[in-house]
Amino acid sequence: MHLSERTWTDAADAGTDLAVLPVGSTEQHGPHAPLGTDVLTAEAVAEAGVERYDGEVVVAPAIPVGVAEEHRQFPGTLWVSEETFRSYVRETVDSLADHGWDRVVLVNGHGGNVDALREVAGRIVRRDDAYAVPFTWFDSVGDHAADMGHGGPLETAVLRAVAPELVREDRIDEAREGASDGWGEWVSGVNLAFDSAEFSENGVVGDPDEGDAERGEELLDLAADALAALLDAIETRDVSRPDRR
Amino acid sequence: MHLSERTWTDAADAGTDLAVLPVGSTEQHGPHAPLGTDVLTAEAVAEAGVERYDGEVVVAPAIPVGVAEEHRQFPGTLWVSEETFRSYVRETVDSLADHGWDRVVLVNGHGGNVDALREVAGRIVRRDDAYAVPFTWFDSVGDHAADMGHGGPLETAVLRAVAPELVREDRIDEAREGASDGWGEWVSGVNLAFDSAEFSENGVVGDPDEGDAERGEELLDLAADALAALLDAIETRDVSRPDRR
Amino acid sequence: MHLSERTWTDAADAGTDLAVLPVGSTEQHGPHAPLGTDVLTAEAVAEAGVERYDGEVVVAPAIPVGVAEEHRQFPGTLWVSEETFRSYVRETVDSLADHGWDRVVLVNGHGGNVDALREVAGRIVRRDDAYAVPFTWFDSVGDHAADMGHGGPLETAVLRAVAPELVREDRIDEAREGASDGWGEWVSGVNLAFDSAEFSENGVVGDPDEGDAERGEELLDLAADALAALLDAIETRDVSRPDRR
Amino acid sequence: MHLSERTWTDAADAGTDLAVLPVGSTEQHGPHAPLGTDVLTAEAVAEAGVERYDGEVVVAPAIPVGVAEEHRQFPGTLWVSEETFRSYVRETVDSLADHGWDRVVLVNGHGGNVDALREVAGRIVRRDDAYAVPFTWFDSVGDHAADMGHGGPLETAVLRAVAPELVREDRIDEAREGASDGWGEWVSGVNLAFDSAEFSENGVVGDPDEGDAERGEELLDLAADALAALLDAIETRDVSRPDRR
Amino acid sequence: MHLSERTWTDAADAGTDLAVLPVGSTEQHGPHAPLGTDVLTAEAVAEAGVERYDGEVVVAPAIPVGVAEEHRQFPGTLWVSEETFRSYVRETVDSLADHGWDRVVLVNGHGGNVDALREVAGRIVRRDDAYAVPFTWFDSVGDHAADMGHGGPLETAVLRAVAPELVREDRIDEAREGASDGWGEWVSGVNLAFDSAEFSENGVVGDPDEGDAERGEELLDLAADALAALLDAIETRDVSRPDRR
Amino acid sequence: MHLSERTWTDAADAGTDLAVLPVGSTEQHGPHAPLGTDVLTAEAVAEAGVERYDGEVVVAPAIPVGVAEEHRQFPGTLWVSEETFRSYVRETVDSLADHGWDRVVLVNGHGGNVDALREVAGRIVRRDDAYAVPFTWFDSVGDHAADMGHGGPLETAVLRAVAPELVREDRIDEAREGASDGWGEWVSGVNLAFDSAEFSENGVVGDPDEGDAERGEELLDLAADALAALLDAIETRDVSRPDRR
Repeated sequence: MHLSERTWTDAADAGTDLAVLPVGSTEQHGPHAPLGTDVLTAEAVAEAGVERYDGEVVVAPAIPVGVAEEHRQFPGTLWVSEETFRSYVRETVDSLADHGWDRVVLVNGHGGNVDALREVAGRIVRRDDAYAVPFTWFDSVGDHAADMGHGGPLETAVLRAVAPELVREDRIDEAREGASDGWGEWVSGVNLAFDSAEFSENGVVGDPDEGDAERGEELLDLAADALAALLDAIETRDVSRPDRR
Repeated sequence: MHLSERTWTDAADAGTDLAVLPVGSTEQHGPHAPLGTDVLTAEAVAEAGVERYDGEVVVAPAIPVGVAEEHRQFPGTLWVSEETFRSYVRETVDSLADHGWDRVVLVNGHGGNVDALREVAGRIVRRDDAYAVPFTWFDSVGDHAADMGHGGPLETAVLRAVAPELVREDRIDEAREGASDGWGEWVSGVNLAFDSAEFSENGVVGDPDEGDAERGEELLDLAADALAALLDAIETRDVSRPDRR
Repeated sequence: MHLSERTWTDAADAGTDLAVLPVGSTEQHGPHAPLGTDVLTAEAVAEAGVERYDGEVVVAPAIPVGVAEEHRQFPGTLWVSEETFRSYVRETVDSLADHGWDRVVLVNGHGGNVDALREVAGRIVRRDDAYAVPFTWFDSVGDHAADMGHGGPLETAVLRAVAPELVREDRIDEAREGASDGWGEWVSGVNLAFDSAEFSENGVVGDPDEGDAERGEELLDLAADALAALLDAIETRDVSRPDRR
Repeated sequence: MHLSERTWTDAADAGTDLAVLPVGSTEQHGPHAPLGTDVLTAEAVAEAGVERYDGEVVVAPAIPVGVAEEHRQFPGTLWVSEETFRSYVRETVDSLADHGWDRVVLVNGHGGNVDALREVAGRIVRRDDAYAVPFTWFDSVGDHAADMGHGGPLETAVLRAVAPELVREDRIDEAREGASDGWGEWVSGVNLAFDSAEFSENGVVGDPDEGDAERGEELLDLAADALAALLDAIETRDVSRPDRR
Repeated sequence: MHLSERTWTDAADAGTDLAVLPVGSTEQHGPHAPLGTDVLTAEAVAEAGVERYDGEVVVAPAIPVGVAEEHRQFPGTLWVSEETFRSYVRETVDSLADHGWDRVVLVNGHGGNVDALREVAGRIVRRDDAYAVPFTWFDSVGDHAADMGHGGPLETAVLRAVAPELVREDRIDEAREGASDGWGEWVSGVNLAFDSAEFSENGVVGDPDEGDAERGEELLDLAADALAALLDAIETRDVSRPDRR
Repeated sequence: MHLSERTWTDAADAGTDLAVLPVGSTEQHGPHAPLGTDVLTAEAVAEAGVERYDGEVVVAPAIPVGVAEEHRQFPGTLWVSEETFRSYVRETVDSLADHGWDRVVLVNGHGGNVDALREVAGRIVRRDDAYAVPFTWFDSVGDHAADMGHGGPLETAVLRAVAPELVREDRIDEAREGASDGWGEWVSGVNLAFDSAEFSENGVVGDPDEGDAERGEELLDLAADALAALLDAIETRDVSRPDRR
């Protein structure tokens, strides 16, 4: 049940304690992929996973701006501070829980949100009347995960599957040429770079040409399976905090 | 230019300092109108106004959850605190301004956001490197404004014009019957009620039957004119703070 | 019972749950009216209303500095941020409630405080152990309200009635000449101005000559009636939050 | 120049960079002295000191509610948290400084405010565009200081000098009988008590009978001298921060 | 029991509700004494006092950075804001209390921490599930206290007793020569200085030569007695808040 | 140069812009390893790395309490919130930078601190006058990293090398028996557990018997090399933020 499209009386009838909250980012994804990539992919995965799950799940509207200051040198990137992002997510989850949907998966489409989401999930689980876990789709697609990049094979693949009209195919070569091979600048296991502009000329990491629509469908399929399995696991999990030793 | 659908290289080419940020709410709108009404209408007005304006305007993605705790007794209503809402809006605007789009209209679809938006706009104008004003569409539609209500004539009309498939026509009678005539419970010019459930049985204020699709088109037309005129006014306005007396 | 002038043992004997907290501002009111106008008028209205009310009411000391940054270009204007103002009001109300005076009217004399007071009253009602409503006197004086302005007819009238020695009658002409006709600069229902110095040369809005002492007495009388009626209403009101639908 | 009673045009003419901000508290002072004692005495000292000083000084309105939770068990005591108090004082001082009155004495009448005022003064001096110091009058009255107590000799004396009608002389015996000899419960140089109700039956510390009006005049005289000397010292002091070693 | 050196299973066996939390500062102490002086002395006093006390006491690790911005002009001085310091202390105490050690002495070695510790102790006592008091060792050493200074007789004495290898004896003359006689610059009972560099050339106050190792042992002995007595007092104290009057 | 043991005049002579700040945690490490493990190991690695580095490095005192609420069910675990931790680290780094040591490595010994340290380093790099990176030693020890666990092979090995007297060898069997094999409870790439007590009986993860003192020396050696290389890299790195695209 997509909340945005249903009435409160419909919501009152939802017999579930499961909800998903898509969380994205509006940020550069190279010259070929739209700034909204992380919202689109999070929504697509949430949609696919909920459809696959055998049971009712409430779908909240996607949060469009996240932790993306690392891309600020690229025009169009929007961002809020980690603190504001965590508060916005936390309070939204708490309002879901207020209606009884108190087991929530934060379906995330952006690497920069990962740490902040894990922190706020812990805060929710320990302090509020809800259980929440972040699920970052590209971490749950098996061996594909190693190809993640940024605006690279995986994201471009999913976009070609779900929103091909938004991919600028005529700029793929340009995207590939200005891309970097990996994320960051590493010494002794430490990333010395804090901004993507420190290591990528055009914001791309990885080769977008390695992600066609077919691979996109496969990724969506894997992510949907993973999300459905996750919903299944948390639906029955004992989420109370353990006893003191 | 809708940021979500364009690349950062497109954004880099946008020759404007104008942006609009749609701001909505996900909250009850009676048994007949979707929880996403305030996002949908804010987006529709932003779209129409930008199209009418003679010049380039950047369109940010809509903020979906706002100040709506007053509706919390109705399932599906989502909300964040005023402080979190203001921070989320402010930082999003600041990131728009970071790219040079530093004259921003907050296109608002929800009455509960009005005060918080005015406050944060003042904060932005006085403290940050941007100028922002809130524009609440239903305050800019001439004599229609008096009919506003909640899930009433105006909102239902616009929905029927832009998203008729989301209006439950089969529940209009139910909506009308549980509606209240006015917003709040007033003594000496003071509204004693803080929650809509104190004065409306089903969350509706006003008669949704008085808002057909034709009226919706007229409202959109009036709001688009108003927004275009506003963009025109702020494009040339001297937004520096006045001198000390 | 004015708390400031009574002892704690007197306070212990107060058999009421009603309190009023006058809230003002120290800010420019033109060349003819004192910076303390909004405190003086709030106190006068609180005094008159409490006297008229048939029952015991605790009167807290007036809060002298409010939300007035919009007048900062005029020397002598003092202000705090909205956040600090709300915290100061909220915690003061909470301490009143701690003694059992948990139905509180915030008797306000300043337009710039209105939104912040409504927000904090909602916070108090929903989160704390008290009920509070803001009462802005010039919104409760019938048709006079349309003449409000700033340092204009209404405020000058009340000052002439309660503190004539503080009105500089020799500067009334000067005040009138530098005044603006209305508050703000409006386009499409939006006030583009954030500071009063953007639209008023000397800080005055309206004609102070239209407010003599007689009118001031009438205004006080109307405001006192309104406040007494409000106290009456909240004394018996069920202030619990409504049930979930 | 008392800001509250003068216009902004008067304020514009004030040729000084000195201001005083009286800071009090509304809190129990035994069965004989009013809850407003600390505001009254702070205002009286500010008034007397400014009059004695040979030069122009701006006088801001008194802050009426301070750090007084330690008296919360006594009805009528009002308080805010230390954080809110510091923010309210700091921002008020900053607005004074915005008009050029950037050397400010915080004339304090309440022991519970002392630490918070020192902390916020340091914050102002180091971070903001102003210099501020707290001046607690009863610490600047020579040998009298040892008799301070609470609602005891010194405060009762000053009240009898400046507001005798507010002292309940008929309750002095009662006040003396329920009083404690000293402030706190001490072990190893540490006060184990956090609330005055832990060691005083009626909130009084010290014997109010030892403070007649004559002593009150003498105290005011001493405090006025001290405040005038302080204003003199800060008017010429180099308040820039020292160089790094 | 020093937590740092024991296991959680040891901690589980600790049959006590008493804990001490040493609190220091890393800041200039003249050319002869180490930047870590206040941590070292706080730890030494905590150690000695706990040893003297007849019963089990949990010893937490020392907090090394405190409220020391007043020394910032001297290289090597570290500091955090008062707010951050209070939060760090408060939450550490709350975690001690979570394990049942809910009567905590904050053993303090730095004058600049005193006010902040008293404030946070009050916050803990009134809001959290613990009782805490600050104990500043040099305030509990009888007549010696008058000689405190900074890097002066007392601190140098204790260092010579517990860590003589860290005292640069070859710089004692230099230390004495650049020292000031007293702390601050006083007018009318008010310290006009906010930074130690305003009144001390090399950061020293008092004569370090007046504190030999023997005096250091005596000071430790006195402080240990005082701390043991304090632990004894709070172990049996009724720490509930008093009843409303 | 260890700040704690040196004077401010020594600090003034330090000709470097490099500093390390050890960051630990006081938390359960099974029945055999001390609660202070993460502080001890962070300090040991910082010490070894600084010694190996060819140049001057300032060493700040270790922060002893970190982000460890996940272990709260085990007695003796201390923790502060992520926000307080970040503020404490950030302000300490800022005070280091104030003295010119503005390239700082946060030498971290605790997995629970990793995300918070990365976030605060980004804040420092982007907002403050310093560059900081977190270095978590067990992520920089080559293939050993896979054995990390908690109180497992690596930490026990290092303890046996640097503080063997604190390892309870008589409880190693007990530690091994109650240990879990891995960290967390995983479904679809998501850790459903938020507290270590959800998956480990005695708080141990991994087999402590696999970490003897020799392995500990090797780990220290690897970590020292890595830290020295990192110091070398940041000493010469251009740490300015990149240009806007």
